[in-house]
Amino acid sequence: MKIAIIGTGAVGTTIASKLLELKYDVMMGTRNVSDKLASTAQDNYGNPPFKEWLKTNSKVKLGSFADAAAYGDLVINATNGSNSVTALILAGARNLAGKVLIDIANPLDFSHGMPPSLLPGLNNTNSLGEEIQKTFPDAMVVKTLNTMWCGLMINPNLVGKGDHINFISGNNAEAKIKVKKLLNEFGWLDENILDIGDLTGARATESLLPIWLKVMGVTKNGAFNFKLVR
Amino acid sequence: MKIAIIGTGAVGTTIASKLLELKYDVMMGTRNVSDKLASTAQDNYGNPPFKEWLKTNSKVKLGSFADAAAYGDLVINATNGSNSVTALILAGARNLAGKVLIDIANPLDFSHGMPPSLLPGLNNTNSLGEEIQKTFPDAMVVKTLNTMWCGLMINPNLVGKGDHINFISGNNAEAKIKVKKLLNEFGWLDENILDIGDLTGARATESLLPIWLKVMGVTKNGAFNFKLVR
Repeated sequence: MKIAIIGTGAVGTTIASKLLELKYDVMMGTRNVSDKLASTAQDNYGNPPFKEWLKTNSKVKLGSFADAAAYGDLVINATNGSNSVTALILAGARNLAGKVLIDIANPLDFSHGMPPSLLPGLNNTNSLGEEIQKTFPDAMVVKTLNTMWCGLMINPNLVGKGDHINFISGNNAEAKIKVKKLLNEFGWLDENILDIGDLTGARATESLLPIWLKVMGVTKNGAFNFKLVR
Repeated sequence: MKIAIIGTGAVGTTIASKLLELKYDVMMGTRNVSDKLASTAQDNYGNPPFKEWLKTNSKVKLGSFADAAAYGDLVINATNGSNSVTALILAGARNLAGKVLIDIANPLDFSHGMPPSLLPGLNNTNSLGEEIQKTFPDAMVVKTLNTMWCGLMINPNLVGKGDHINFISGNNAEAKIKVKKLLNEFGWLDENILDIGDLTGARATESLLPIWLKVMGVTKNGAFNFKLVR
């Protein structure tokens, strides 16, 4: 299967590396390929520039947002939440139609300083996941993995022997089944993937960001998650 | 210590029963005492009318919101979040001044049907806990216990041997220490009470309600909580 990743930040590269390991064909989409390949900027977390990462992940193809979306049988949105809809419009509705679109992004609003809140209009009675689905009605949006640090997304065993929770929501049952299989390959056991129903679930999981940020502020380490106890 | 509980619903009665068991003197505050004692209405969850509960918890005093707030050395807000500020205004700023005010309520908005969202103006960049603190600057508001079913609040051992998380936030460190001691008496171990800092933490814990409601919708049982895995 060919997988497209929209966005080349820490989340995108972390998932791309894992997909290569799993022998998928991967194309990442960026706004401007030559700018991205020329950039020597580190990201906010001190990770090396993308072109350095690409040297050790040379099987990853790089293209425009539209190139990547056209390439992928399945598309993953790993952009910043504040840019997601814009990036996906550039990716092109036609290139997303009929495809599973995994949305990992969170609508964080850094405009009022740290810690961020959620973007106006994309919280409480709406969500980024739903906004993407409304904008691309022919895509099958599945929200998952957005409630944790990217290192855990593709390696849940890093903490608690992998026994903690990943939520999944979306309007299309078959799309969720496909995504669950990919999550299994990432190391997620079925019993730790909780299907919370339709895509309004994205409101609930995106609303976990404020507590995630508070816990991160206390523990000073993103390698944590929550386990459902009952 | 004398403890006041503002509100006579399921949360209020559950906590009152536990406080009696712990030998505290308890007064509950209600809008209209004679109405409350006359009412034969069950609550939304099928619990018996308050007057029935009172027969088996006869050491609990019942008064107006103001009577109760004046009585308590410590005050617990267990009203519906949509009525909390109004009820506390009736309780009286003078009766709350200088006291620890534990806020357990959530600003749920049922006006758009089920599941509820959070009330406009009391989410994302504000919270009920903060709104109460702003309204009563001389009270010491501590937000805690609002992320779970009331049965677990006073008996965490009901699930997972009590090994799951309760968040606490507030602007006054001494007030939080007092509340932690009470939480210990409820059965919460220090290691499972996570202090997430000042009262902006209420935004984060109140934002857990949407995922709580989704999980409850799947599991059909409120006796669950989350454990921090790291």
